[in-house]
Amino acid sequence: MPDRVVGPEIERLIQLLARLPGYGPRSARRAALHLMRKREELLSPLADAMRVAKERIVTCESCGSVDTRSPCSICGDNRRDAAQLVIVETVGDLWALERAGVVKGRYHVLGGTLSPLDGVGPADLNLQGLVTRVAEGEVREVIIAVNATVDGQTTAHYVTDMLAHLGVRVTRLAHGVPVGGELDYLDEGTLAAAIRSRTAF
Amino acid sequence: MPDRVVGPEIERLIQLLARLPGYGPRSARRAALHLMRKREELLSPLADAMRVAKERIVTCESCGSVDTRSPCSICGDNRRDAAQLVIVETVGDLWALERAGVVKGRYHVLGGTLSPLDGVGPADLNLQGLVTRVAEGEVREVIIAVNATVDGQTTAHYVTDMLAHLGVRVTRLAHGVPVGGELDYLDEGTLAAAIRSRTAF
Ligand SMILES: [Zn+2]
Ligand SMILES: [Zn+2]
Repeated sequence: MPDRVVGPEIERLIQLLARLPGYGPRSARRAALHLMRKREELLSPLADAMRVAKERIVTCESCGSVDTRSPCSICGDNRRDAAQLVIVETVGDLWALERAGVVKGRYHVLGGTLSPLDGVGPADLNLQGLVTRVAEGEVREVIIAVNATVDGQTTAHYVTDMLAHLGVRVTRLAHGVPVGGELDYLDEGTLAAAIRSRTAF
Repeated sequence: MPDRVVGPEIERLIQLLARLPGYGPRSARRAALHLMRKREELLSPLADAMRVAKERIVTCESCGSVDTRSPCSICGDNRRDAAQLVIVETVGDLWALERAGVVKGRYHVLGGTLSPLDGVGPADLNLQGLVTRVAEGEVREVIIAVNATVDGQTTAHYVTDMLAHLGVRVTRLAHGVPVGGELDYLDEGTLAAAIRSRTAF
């Protein structure tokens, strides 16, 4: 919008909102209008929440996740099973697994995958911390929960090799048909894996 | 997400982000992760921009729009044609017309439409200010640019009656086929209006 329509402060708010995921110029304008209408109920608390988040979020020194404390809420939770460690690529993957409520243990966030083409090597991932953690001796099983992509699988193999001498069991997520998924839409590799790993009815 | 996964500060940020237009719990989590990754480039400036907007936005005493000054950037712009006043329902509509770049004059933001069913009467809209403005004598044409809805048209008639004794020309937006619109998808009312208001080729 030309500068003469609104003050530069609103213009700047719109420009920054447009950089939120899923937003563009149009939705950013809608969001700015919404925020200006809900000044006390939304704009003000959201500005505060962002400020607080900005000041307090830290990377967990143990697992590499983000939280407002380090060790993070999960690493610091003594009810977690210290014998189980789940390796994920991103904090988003960690949150997804937590929502599924299936992990009893803790996590280790790699921060990405090995990707020679993009110049991402072992030193760019949170791998040294992983070896240190596993070498401490409490972990009995490492579950590799990286994405089922080429880079994810390359990373899974690398991690497996790296942990080989530490005497832990290394497992990975099963391949198969997503719950609710239609066979018609699945690729051959997934279908082949689902047949191979079939279970008794 | 259960409280034990992340600190309450991040949980609160996610809950507030979920109230942005077009967002829900899932996109709010994505946005929170994005903001935490872009702490310096996005989270911090966005928090600041919201804080500034919160402190500075005001309703224009003249037109009812929102800006960081009153009179707003448009009302305060002397290059605007004082003879033309465009009536819109919302600030979003004002911005849309500004992007089209077709309005030489100024605006008057009603803040909604008359809606007996929803209990919105004349006193709930910015109508008294409109009469005052037009009565000052500079305005020669009032263009009613409300939505082509039932409530919008009710409001248009009400405004027309209200201004009748003030000797200004009252016009409204043309109905017709949207640019790029396919006839197949348009309702009969629009098509009939487009035929009635046909122009020479
Ligand atoms: Zn942690
Ligand atoms: Zn104004």
